[in-house]
Amino acid sequence: MTERNIRVQALERGAVEDQEVEIVERKGLGHPDSICDGIAEHVSEELARAYLDRVGKVLHYNTDETQLVAGNAAPAFGGGEVVEPIYLLIVGRATKHYEDEDGEEYHIPVDSIALEAARDYLRENFPALDLETDVIVDVKLGEGSGDLQEVFGEEGKSVPMANDTSFGVGHAPLTETEQLVYETERRLVTDFHEEHPALGQDVKVMGKREGDQIDITVAAAMVDRHVDSLDEYADEVDAVREYVEDLADDYTDRDVSVYVNTADDYEEGSIYLTVTGTSAEQGDDGSVGRGNRANGLITPNRSMSMEATSGKNPVNHIGKIYNLLSTDIAEGVVADVEGIRDLRVRLLSQIGRPIDEPHVADVDVVTEEDVTIEDIDADVREIVDEKLANVTDVTERVIEGELTTF
Amino acid sequence: MTERNIRVQALERGAVEDQEVEIVERKGLGHPDSICDGIAEHVSEELARAYLDRVGKVLHYNTDETQLVAGNAAPAFGGGEVVEPIYLLIVGRATKHYEDEDGEEYHIPVDSIALEAARDYLRENFPALDLETDVIVDVKLGEGSGDLQEVFGEEGKSVPMANDTSFGVGHAPLTETEQLVYETERRLVTDFHEEHPALGQDVKVMGKREGDQIDITVAAAMVDRHVDSLDEYADEVDAVREYVEDLADDYTDRDVSVYVNTADDYEEGSIYLTVTGTSAEQGDDGSVGRGNRANGLITPNRSMSMEATSGKNPVNHIGKIYNLLSTDIAEGVVADVEGIRDLRVRLLSQIGRPIDEPHVADVDVVTEEDVTIEDIDADVREIVDEKLANVTDVTERVIEGELTTF
Amino acid sequence: MTERNIRVQALERGAVEDQEVEIVERKGLGHPDSICDGIAEHVSEELARAYLDRVGKVLHYNTDETQLVAGNAAPAFGGGEVVEPIYLLIVGRATKHYEDEDGEEYHIPVDSIALEAARDYLRENFPALDLETDVIVDVKLGEGSGDLQEVFGEEGKSVPMANDTSFGVGHAPLTETEQLVYETERRLVTDFHEEHPALGQDVKVMGKREGDQIDITVAAAMVDRHVDSLDEYADEVDAVREYVEDLADDYTDRDVSVYVNTADDYEEGSIYLTVTGTSAEQGDDGSVGRGNRANGLITPNRSMSMEATSGKNPVNHIGKIYNLLSTDIAEGVVADVEGIRDLRVRLLSQIGRPIDEPHVADVDVVTEEDVTIEDIDADVREIVDEKLANVTDVTERVIEGELTTF
Amino acid sequence: MTERNIRVQALERGAVEDQEVEIVERKGLGHPDSICDGIAEHVSEELARAYLDRVGKVLHYNTDETQLVAGNAAPAFGGGEVVEPIYLLIVGRATKHYEDEDGEEYHIPVDSIALEAARDYLRENFPALDLETDVIVDVKLGEGSGDLQEVFGEEGKSVPMANDTSFGVGHAPLTETEQLVYETERRLVTDFHEEHPALGQDVKVMGKREGDQIDITVAAAMVDRHVDSLDEYADEVDAVREYVEDLADDYTDRDVSVYVNTADDYEEGSIYLTVTGTSAEQGDDGSVGRGNRANGLITPNRSMSMEATSGKNPVNHIGKIYNLLSTDIAEGVVADVEGIRDLRVRLLSQIGRPIDEPHVADVDVVTEEDVTIEDIDADVREIVDEKLANVTDVTERVIEGELTTF
Repeated sequence: MTERNIRVQALERGAVEDQEVEIVERKGLGHPDSICDGIAEHVSEELARAYLDRVGKVLHYNTDETQLVAGNAAPAFGGGEVVEPIYLLIVGRATKHYEDEDGEEYHIPVDSIALEAARDYLRENFPALDLETDVIVDVKLGEGSGDLQEVFGEEGKSVPMANDTSFGVGHAPLTETEQLVYETERRLVTDFHEEHPALGQDVKVMGKREGDQIDITVAAAMVDRHVDSLDEYADEVDAVREYVEDLADDYTDRDVSVYVNTADDYEEGSIYLTVTGTSAEQGDDGSVGRGNRANGLITPNRSMSMEATSGKNPVNHIGKIYNLLSTDIAEGVVADVEGIRDLRVRLLSQIGRPIDEPHVADVDVVTEEDVTIEDIDADVREIVDEKLANVTDVTERVIEGELTTF
Repeated sequence: MTERNIRVQALERGAVEDQEVEIVERKGLGHPDSICDGIAEHVSEELARAYLDRVGKVLHYNTDETQLVAGNAAPAFGGGEVVEPIYLLIVGRATKHYEDEDGEEYHIPVDSIALEAARDYLRENFPALDLETDVIVDVKLGEGSGDLQEVFGEEGKSVPMANDTSFGVGHAPLTETEQLVYETERRLVTDFHEEHPALGQDVKVMGKREGDQIDITVAAAMVDRHVDSLDEYADEVDAVREYVEDLADDYTDRDVSVYVNTADDYEEGSIYLTVTGTSAEQGDDGSVGRGNRANGLITPNRSMSMEATSGKNPVNHIGKIYNLLSTDIAEGVVADVEGIRDLRVRLLSQIGRPIDEPHVADVDVVTEEDVTIEDIDADVREIVDEKLANVTDVTERVIEGELTTF
Repeated sequence: MTERNIRVQALERGAVEDQEVEIVERKGLGHPDSICDGIAEHVSEELARAYLDRVGKVLHYNTDETQLVAGNAAPAFGGGEVVEPIYLLIVGRATKHYEDEDGEEYHIPVDSIALEAARDYLRENFPALDLETDVIVDVKLGEGSGDLQEVFGEEGKSVPMANDTSFGVGHAPLTETEQLVYETERRLVTDFHEEHPALGQDVKVMGKREGDQIDITVAAAMVDRHVDSLDEYADEVDAVREYVEDLADDYTDRDVSVYVNTADDYEEGSIYLTVTGTSAEQGDDGSVGRGNRANGLITPNRSMSMEATSGKNPVNHIGKIYNLLSTDIAEGVVADVEGIRDLRVRLLSQIGRPIDEPHVADVDVVTEEDVTIEDIDADVREIVDEKLANVTDVTERVIEGELTTF
Repeated sequence: MTERNIRVQALERGAVEDQEVEIVERKGLGHPDSICDGIAEHVSEELARAYLDRVGKVLHYNTDETQLVAGNAAPAFGGGEVVEPIYLLIVGRATKHYEDEDGEEYHIPVDSIALEAARDYLRENFPALDLETDVIVDVKLGEGSGDLQEVFGEEGKSVPMANDTSFGVGHAPLTETEQLVYETERRLVTDFHEEHPALGQDVKVMGKREGDQIDITVAAAMVDRHVDSLDEYADEVDAVREYVEDLADDYTDRDVSVYVNTADDYEEGSIYLTVTGTSAEQGDDGSVGRGNRANGLITPNRSMSMEATSGKNPVNHIGKIYNLLSTDIAEGVVADVEGIRDLRVRLLSQIGRPIDEPHVADVDVVTEEDVTIEDIDADVREIVDEKLANVTDVTERVIEGELTTF
């Protein structure tokens, strides 16, 4: 076993759960920034698969840039229309031409793959978005530098070298507020949406806890074709609020107040009604890496990485891998080791060293009152060590779409 | 009845049929320039219909510009792929906002309409083109000037004023070579294509007649998924040649030689194989108004108008209307009046006068040997006069998609 | 000497000068279509020079597509502004990578060359256009097919093979109306403009002759910063008219009526005032090959080629070469041979044959009354033969910018 | 005086200066993400000024999106060239049409302003970037929603209402490592650059402190035209290292190791040589809000806001204002109040309340050993209160370009 530089120590701040004020945000699936994240990541998955299928290894690419230019829409009860389509520009680098050791040449249709991946992603996730009228998908993928091209084989899964000095951070367990913010969006756009097709995908959730009072503020885009009147709209808003209030009971005993679409003004007829279920249809631009971190949340109370995880090559982009892996480690440790109230994992890479040997793997822990660092040290180390040893699993799971990046 | 300035006179040149050398060309449906013509015209039709549906009149627009940037493709027997999508930019002007006399406001989603029209057109006409991977459709429609906006009502069909000094020209009957060139393309991409899905839509036909020898040169894109080998390719090429040879018998007694895909070099493996059925997939850019004239042909032996007919507003764009009308008149006269060997109709507009009163309507005729201009003068005038009187029929027929523009 | 297939015969129609009705048009330098022609051709020249400088031969390219999307402007006496920039998309094919016989590799910055060429062209020709605010120049140059890449060397100037069956046509001498239309635009934007900076570059001239009455209609964009009032505007319009009236005396003894900016309505304040000197700033889109033919005119009374000459590779694009060459031949013959009233040269290529051996070189002549075809036949043949023998001169002169294409 | 909800308390974590491991990063002026930040912010400034000049108030806009698509370059000692231009797409919303109370109408050329601002910014900051060949600037600014349009007057400077629930965070004082990272980049691209034109603007600095050992890693793009050989390149790299080593003495007594361009491999000829001084020329895309936070640094040891500050409207975009203001407050407190080792200011807005009355203004302090929170509480509150009272100063200073956002 490699001797890895793992350090387990007390986290100097207390548990976030104990802090007086906590702020948590989640930009939902249909937020313009998340649309870009989702497309960038889906393009990445499809490119990785295409490289594996065709060449037997993942070649160099990074598709971590997508620019969304908002459209214009005229929503109306019963169904309005998009007046000016959303414009999406997929940007990145991808190897278009490859020659293997045997001299066989491959031309990989990276632009076509990206185009299809983006459109598929939109089709699957945005039922109210008409791909024929509401969105223009454009692609500008340049070629990366040649010497970086061969990176990840099917056969040996050798551990790649870090391509950069970078940093990943993960946390576990989530606080009640964090869980509630996260689950509010996830459950609304899945379970609730099934019964309530009026709910669009652009559901932004803001959580604020002061002491034991949690406020959950939801901005939920409604889809006009499923809403015939202001009364129906009001009913849908009420349904969202009630659903979230119920949901809150599963996650906390604290007092929770839920606010939905607080910017609405029924008198003025100013409500959050959309044609497509996302604010991208009217005035809200978006891009990759500006919203949720790799764990799906924006948590200013916690260390965050600025790295845009979505769209990056999961084979050797160390920023992506370490953000996903540190989250995975944190969750793994908390699942298996008793007595941890809060845990932060930070992985710092060193250029040119194998990525399973980070420069440092820092594990900072807040333990339960009756537990000491020493009590858990060995168990934690073992898990961290094992997860690092299997770092390439992250790559595979990303390619399979099993890990979310935003 | 209006006194129209109709002039009937002898055509000073002889009939084109009698000229020693004749050159005729038709760029087929799938030629990059024709793709642009077709999209521009279909966008125009859909815009006109949308204005009629929503506002009750056709508002100002012109969508007579579409730029096609060729893609890259890797065709292969049995089915290759598009490596880099074709990029299509739809350009023009269209009224986006309108307020009627009653103060009711309309927002017309012209960009969305154009996007959908273009994609529909491609889907219907290019079965081998995968809209999810092979083409990017982009739109840049500006707003026209406000005072030109209201132009064509449903109710009265009043005759609009000419917006320009412009010129239209039509010819009839087509010469044998012209008919043969035209029908070769039309029949290949319809009848022949039904039996031979291997034939793509990009069929360019060049006709050259020297005396009584006609050479028909066909460049026909084959679709790789329907062609499994070089032998099959050769068979398809042979089938095209035989089909055209047979077809020739219907149109002429002259000697006809048919050449298909003469640039092929089987030794070198250089053949006209495509993924999508059009050369736009690889290296051939296109734009509106560069190919066929309004009668579907390029005929340097005859007067031609430079006007790009496709995509223009059919209500008041005098260049479009007069090119279509003069062709319609020429065909009408030749159908009804005996003794005409060749006929040219030229309509010249005058700004500010109603379009049914051209500055001059020149009809130049080559009669049969035993027929004089005087013999036919009255009949010709009557038809011209009637067609001019019903000039707005052209508008309607264009909007209904009954008139072709390229 | 090669035996070339030159045919000299009587032109079956009479001289255009003798026809009853004649229509001639010239879209001036600043017309949106001409802007595209000019840019396409200048990009072509710069690419050709760059290839010669770097590789010693002209590699494969075609830049005969440029799409102009009109901007929006708010002209005002004394100086208004462009509100939305003109968008220019330069489209085409150009060899980006080349390996010579010695294995030396070249990367030619074709996009950067095209970008600079376009901006230089605009800067030099449109003094009122501010390149920092009024125009966006974008470039999409794809790579052509590899086997067409090496085409024109400095050393031997071997005659290339025709790449297509194509057709070029030239005429001489110009009729009085043609000369007048052509010179009107040329002289207005040069000599007149020097004294009258108020005159923009978008000067469209329409000539119509009926018998001995010539009407010249000029649409001349005025530049707002040089026009302080409606009175000044009216003075400029008058000055244009007087200038053209004077000019007419140099070219014809016929009656000439000159109309300038006839669509103006001073009462309504509707005048042809611009910020930049071109209608491209507001509502008029443009593209290559839609305007003037290679001789600078649109002449429906004469045979015309549909070929877009501007931007094409001057080494082996037979359509471009034959259009320029046939015009050059026609002018050469008329300059040297007495007794010709009208002459048309048509060159028809044959794929795969050297371009100095056209399939046929047809020279159709209308002679003076007392001259027969036999009288001039030998002289004509000699000139045609010599011009064909020196066909590569056309290439050189195009690259040097000595031949105009629109 | 308004009663503001200001809370001053002990920061539960220790001072960052005391933490065992510290990571700090600064993406320099020429990093592709920073280029986008800089352009977005400069466009914003110019728009704000234009609105003030023309309308007397800042109308609604947000230009916080710019997408940079990397070019391709062929750097070479003595001077190479950009082969494919960088493509920059400026995205956002801006009011194009406004009607004031007196019915006067204004058309603001927002696209032209943005275009010019972006080009000016590039020209001023990137001396080695040739705007005629190396970069394409494109603009897509949509119109925002109408009811948000009037936001900021010259006259009264009334305090606007918060447009969102948002969060800003500021820190002071910077740690030694932070100061060193920040100053390294700032001083290199200013003072050092003056003597060493070979240094480009793309200088990325990574600081890592473990205990008392600080590693500063600099990736510095060199400009090829100022570097004639590998030896000269190596000299420049050495000069950078020495300069930063010297600089370090001004900021810390800790051990500092400086590494410059560690990815270079002189044997392989793989060095960080550029034509333009930025990696945007070759393979590195960029966008707004992905790099430095409002204080110019990326500091995972500290609370960070995900808000993209650059390009946002400084009048009512609460995320921008609170990030800048909280930093300003933190610096102001530390400058005036003795005994503070580390201080964090967090401002949380509440939709619909005036922005000078945040929902909460949290000030968390680590004091010197002999200082208590009580000792400083009153002084801190006073400063916070005053800064909040003058919140609109932030707006003015942003418009004047006095506050940096990245």
